[in-house]
Amino acid sequence: MLLLIPGPVQTRPEVKAAMAQDIAPWDRDFQAVYARIRERILAVAGGIPGVHATLPIQGAGHFVTEAALRSFVAPGAKVLVPMNGAYASRMARLAREAGRIVVELPLPDTRGAVAADILPALDADPSIGTVAMVFNETGSGIVNDAAGIGDALRGRGVRLVLDAVSAFGVLPFPLAEHPECDVLVFTSGKCLEGMPGMGFAVARMDRAEACAGQAGSWSLDLSDVLAHARRSGWGSIRFTPPVQAIAAFDAALDLYEAEGGQRARLARYAANRDVLYDGILALGLRPYLAREEQGPVIVTVHQPADPRFDLMAFVEALKRRGVLISNFYNTAAPTMRIGTIGAITPDDMRRAVGAIGAALDEVLPRAA
Amino acid sequence: MLLLIPGPVQTRPEVKAAMAQDIAPWDRDFQAVYARIRERILAVAGGIPGVHATLPIQGAGHFVTEAALRSFVAPGAKVLVPMNGAYASRMARLAREAGRIVVELPLPDTRGAVAADILPALDADPSIGTVAMVFNETGSGIVNDAAGIGDALRGRGVRLVLDAVSAFGVLPFPLAEHPECDVLVFTSGKCLEGMPGMGFAVARMDRAEACAGQAGSWSLDLSDVLAHARRSGWGSIRFTPPVQAIAAFDAALDLYEAEGGQRARLARYAANRDVLYDGILALGLRPYLAREEQGPVIVTVHQPADPRFDLMAFVEALKRRGVLISNFYNTAAPTMRIGTIGAITPDDMRRAVGAIGAALDEVLPRAA
Repeated sequence: MLLLIPGPVQTRPEVKAAMAQDIAPWDRDFQAVYARIRERILAVAGGIPGVHATLPIQGAGHFVTEAALRSFVAPGAKVLVPMNGAYASRMARLAREAGRIVVELPLPDTRGAVAADILPALDADPSIGTVAMVFNETGSGIVNDAAGIGDALRGRGVRLVLDAVSAFGVLPFPLAEHPECDVLVFTSGKCLEGMPGMGFAVARMDRAEACAGQAGSWSLDLSDVLAHARRSGWGSIRFTPPVQAIAAFDAALDLYEAEGGQRARLARYAANRDVLYDGILALGLRPYLAREEQGPVIVTVHQPADPRFDLMAFVEALKRRGVLISNFYNTAAPTMRIGTIGAITPDDMRRAVGAIGAALDEVLPRAA
Repeated sequence: MLLLIPGPVQTRPEVKAAMAQDIAPWDRDFQAVYARIRERILAVAGGIPGVHATLPIQGAGHFVTEAALRSFVAPGAKVLVPMNGAYASRMARLAREAGRIVVELPLPDTRGAVAADILPALDADPSIGTVAMVFNETGSGIVNDAAGIGDALRGRGVRLVLDAVSAFGVLPFPLAEHPECDVLVFTSGKCLEGMPGMGFAVARMDRAEACAGQAGSWSLDLSDVLAHARRSGWGSIRFTPPVQAIAAFDAALDLYEAEGGQRARLARYAANRDVLYDGILALGLRPYLAREEQGPVIVTVHQPADPRFDLMAFVEALKRRGVLISNFYNTAAPTMRIGTIGAITPDDMRRAVGAIGAALDEVLPRAA
């Protein structure tokens, strides 16, 4: 089966094999594994040793995103969220339910947000101290201009909380060049091609210390995660982590480096995307995004207008052909979501396009 | 290596093997796997189908414990916590940082709490609506009398939030007989011998619905977990779960049933405990608990009074002999923690006692 979804992704056999062991989280051998994971994450993030820290939160990406919002935005403080996709809406909800004041900035979900979209909202309300945004929006496939927006915030003293869950490792945002960014977050099961189960924040340590006591949740307090790691002397993870997923992530980082890191992985994903985008057009389907707005992580496609089309039946027909895509969608218009990330190649994508065509023929048979 | 720790535990090869697959969390095949996990958990909990629900929270046990406290205790409401161990202290901290009013009831950590300990505190403050307590306290190894305390609360209209993390599957607390219990929580990597990564709550559905909107955290809102599962039509898990850990848990539940369920597993753990307790005495070491207070999950042992004794050196000496125990302790007095749960047998325990003796001889050589 070929998993074409934006996480959990298809993984390599080496990653799966790394899980087949019992591990004690505080064991000295595992300390060494986790120490090299932390260092490699910091390097991928373009962070500065001694300035930035890798802070773990086990569980789903939503948990580490909520932890970032709780830890770096004070209760009752205002946070601006550019609203141009399903994951932006989720970020806003996480902040709102945690008691932060969310200022929603509605934007179209068919193009990436840029600084010019954001600045008028900040001009209109100088009490906004933080922008919280999604880097790669897997609801549609657009990429928001995190670097350009970050640059614009920097001059104004406004801080950035960046949900890089489905971007990290592929779309660069070097933290050393972005001191306006308090924290970015990502998970183990996306573009770094590990298994799901671990979230990570990369944050400025001085700011994480300064915001001690404001999270309103012990579980989701990144300042306490940092304090605990320091007290332990070896960067201990607070509370029992999914150790097998961490061991798999270590193997996944080996493969990431062997492939050539961010540039090589982005090039492969972009090639996957191009094969799929062209193939979708050739099948007579209509992509949700214009080519110039189409990011490298997920291609969203309008469902055929034919009233006989049923997404679940199509997904099952495609699955019988060895390709699994999402059986739900996140856009207002009915769409299909096809991931282009994971341990898959342009050849896999060509095979997938063929299978999509055959599955369409099955669920929408042509008149005889 | 023999893992003798109170989670993550030693697992069987079948459990490890189940992780070696890529899985989409919403795939129909996986829906069937997760549906049977939910049902089996409800049965282990002694819950009533249609009354109780299995509610998943991915990540560490602390997360699902915090979710239970946030969801079932209103902000600003009072919750009584019997304080007789490290995990009781953690439960109190989780509630306090979430803005609930914690009434601490100090108790000795060398015996399990009983109803007579709790009732005077409830008499003294009738505004206490909930008792939150740990069932099996892995800080020392005592077992609190959850059933007796639950019975006493029931007549008073006081509710129970039960941290059954290291008890579930071994120490019975049938929810059908305990309507005073709003929710109990546990994790995949303890007595059910799965891998770490998933937490579960088993809760009354009517109460989970009634407390909608009070969690103050979207990530940790069990009422929303229930609403999401219902909307999906198949009990969907909110947000990406650690699917490999869930697949492993399904395999672990197969083995649990094949072994004979709760009674058989408790009997094996009790036999492990007895071999260890006797062996510790025979080695001239001093258990932290009297035999009648010693639970079946973890045996805590006073460190030798010899000033040459160093816990970390001892743990490493024991590890060289194929046995891994905790390299930290949770009691006020210096102790060692030796787990008796996981895929281990009394024969493994006899081997471990031999290794403990040999490691002691190494780190505390007798005068020539």
